[in-house]
Parts: sequence; C-alpha cells; structure tokens
Amino acid sequence: MKQILVKKDILKSNDEIAKKNREAFSQKGIFSINMLGSPGAGKTSVLEQIIKSLKAEVNMTVIEGDLYTTKDAERIENQGVQVIQVNTGGGCHLDASMIEEAIKYIEIKDVDFLIIENVGNLVCPASYDLSEDMKVTVLSITEGNDKPLKYPSMFQKSEILIVNKIDLIEHTNFSMDELYNDIKSLNENIKIFEISCRTGEGINKLSTFFKEKIKDKRRNI
Amino acid sequence: MKQILVKKDILKSNDEIAKKNREAFSQKGIFSINMLGSPGAGKTSVLEQIIKSLKAEVNMTVIEGDLYTTKDAERIENQGVQVIQVNTGGGCHLDASMIEEAIKYIEIKDVDFLIIENVGNLVCPASYDLSEDMKVTVLSITEGNDKPLKYPSMFQKSEILIVNKIDLIEHTNFSMDELYNDIKSLNENIKIFEISCRTGEGINKLSTFFKEKIKDKRRNI
Repeated sequence: MKQILVKKDILKSNDEIAKKNREAFSQKGIFSINMLGSPGAGKTSVLEQIIKSLKAEVNMTVIEGDLYTTKDAERIENQGVQVIQVNTGGGCHLDASMIEEAIKYIEIKDVDFLIIENVGNLVCPASYDLSEDMKVTVLSITEGNDKPLKYPSMFQKSEILIVNKIDLIEHTNFSMDELYNDIKSLNENIKIFEISCRTGEGINKLSTFFKEKIKDKRRNI
Repeated sequence: MKQILVKKDILKSNDEIAKKNREAFSQKGIFSINMLGSPGAGKTSVLEQIIKSLKAEVNMTVIEGDLYTTKDAERIENQGVQVIQVNTGGGCHLDASMIEEAIKYIEIKDVDFLIIENVGNLVCPASYDLSEDMKVTVLSITEGNDKPLKYPSMFQKSEILIVNKIDLIEHTNFSMDELYNDIKSLNENIKIFEISCRTGEGINKLSTFFKEKIKDKRRNI
C-alpha cells in the first residue's frame, strides 16, 4: 500500500485538473466512481462487497481518502486489490489534485475500474469534481430518511444512491416511501439500489450494474 | 421560530467573537453546549429527550444549525422551547459570528441552558469555538466503533461523548471495549454516556448531569 500526504495545489483550479484526469481515464477506458456519504454510512463495507463480486473479472484500483489513518485502506488491501491511501491531514474532502497525485502511483494502463472513496462527510465533498464518471452516494437506513432534503447537494449531484443497512429497517422509523419521494424531488434521474452488506441482499444487482458500466467504458475507447 | 441567513463576518476572528459571547453567557449564568456529530447520529433526537426531561425545571433555548431546511428546528419547536434557526446556506459548520447574530433574537436574560446543534459533520465543526462551555459529540452505534480514530479532532475536543442507539448494538459488530480504548487514547478526560432515544435508556442520567452543570453555572454568576 502506498501512502501519500497531499499538499493542495492552489494554482490550478480543481475543475481543470479534473478535466485532465478525466480525459486520461477515458483514453484508457477506465470507469471511475466517487463514493460519498456520512461517516459510518458503510462506504468501505459496500466497497468490500463490490470487490468480492467483481475481482475475478475486473481489474480494480481503490483510492482511499481519509483524514489521518490507513484503517479503510487496510480493509480494502485485505481484499487483494491495489490501494492508494490519500491522507488529507485533517481536510474534509478530496480534490482533483489529490487524485492527480495518487494516480502517479498506479499502473493505470491495467485498470478497468477506479473507485475513489471520499472522506466521510455529507457536505463538503459534493463541491469537488474528482474526474469520476459517477458520483455514488451511500446513505444508511440508520441515518434516517430526512437526510436528502437536509443535505441536498450531494444527492442532487449523484448518479447513484445506495441505500445501505436495509436489514435494520424494522428497528428504525425510516420511511422508504418518503425517501423515494424526497430523492426524486431533488434528482429525478438518480438510480437507487437497496442493499445490505450484512445479509448480501442487493449486492449482485449493484455489482452487475457496475460491470455493465465498466464494459461500456472499455468498448468506447 | 426566527430564521436568519447569516453572512460570515470575515473581519473578526472566530475566537475573538467566541470569547465575547462566552463572557456574555457567563455573566448571565447561561450554561451552553455545542452538539456535534455525523448526519444521522441522532443529535436532534437526543435534544428532544433532554428537553422533555428538563423543560419543567430549566429555561432552555436551542440554536439549530442547518444547511437550508428548518426540519430540525420544527422538531424542537414542537417540544415547546425557544428555537433560533441558523441556515448556513450550504456551509459545513457553524461559527461564532453566527452565534453572535443568533443571540440577538433571544431573550437571553431568561435562559439557563443554551443548546447549539451544529451541522451534521464529523470534520469541519471541530475547528470552530462557538463560545460553548462544553462540546458534546453524539456517536451512534450504527456508525461503527472505528470513528474516533478516523475522525480524532472532534473526539479530542469534546468533554462529553454520547453513544446513541445502543438498542441496536446486537444487530451490529460494534465493540464497546474497542470504543472505550480508542476514545481514552485520544481524550482520557472525556465523559461517556450510553443512551437510546428509542427505549429511553440512559436519558435520566444524562439529563441529571446537565442539570447539575446548569445549577453550577447559575451559582457562579
């Protein structure tokens, strides 16, 4: 596992750097996602499940954003895929210059699927394009169904919403109907997957979705 | 309910403003807390429980920080206490100038207990002194016991940790032993309360603790 401490390049705008990265990824047929969500929504657990489903067929690399620790990166490395740890040194989000720096450490030509796990934060990371094809937000049942309206930006900008921990719904007052209504009022095109990393429910459907996206991207080189 | 949209005053430093607010609160014997935690940790639910326990004896006012909505403020207003809504307009934390602005709308001389509910975010709010007597962080069982080491700053700066949703512990792999070990390695003086807003477990003990703090503050005018 490589670990790098990134100093933000304030001279180039985030969007310019993201555009450059995105072009490089597209030329190589790399499909990339930016995984977002609150601390504890289960981003790393979802990632572990996707990796287990796809690693036999897909060459994956993970960029792990974290404030200081390598805890999540270690969990991902245990799954046997390439991991680059980016420590933000207390910073509340990743930005495109951190991705630019991180990919220097990747054998990028071999990668089919680049997964960027952002810092756990439902506010700040929404503002930064990391050169991903899709923003994927993970919301857990135990956070409550009021979160999309309270933190709208991330849900408006995401192509995918993963509703995680659905095995716990009976122990909460979470309303799936209200969630769908609220989400669709913010972002009518968002695609929703309901899953549980504990029981495995919904994981196949989610992994199959990503597999198709990865194939499409390869096809369009 | 008053609702104000605050424009940040960049001319005065946060700490200077916090100091001025703090002196004003102390002169009037107001005990104040800054409630922090991830989105969905249960800050508003904890607040509802504290209000129910104490409102017969204590004059409480709540400042509700939120990005855009008044959802949490409405929940608190339903409890029959004075609420001031501060919308950050997408900003990821409250700062002392927002509190300075908010208290213009409060009959502050009558207040015993001022509760500031911060924006749901485990990173950015830790850096801003809001003139509180105590930072109180709410961590829910379903977020996982790894959060203190991953997001250390908030836990290092808090006097109180409320571990919420303990009724769900049997459905998770949360380790209370690991939590205590990690927390104590970051902040050996932190006081921990284990509670459930659903079952009511631990609420009395928590409310009694705050009641004593409120009395002490009054005594020291």
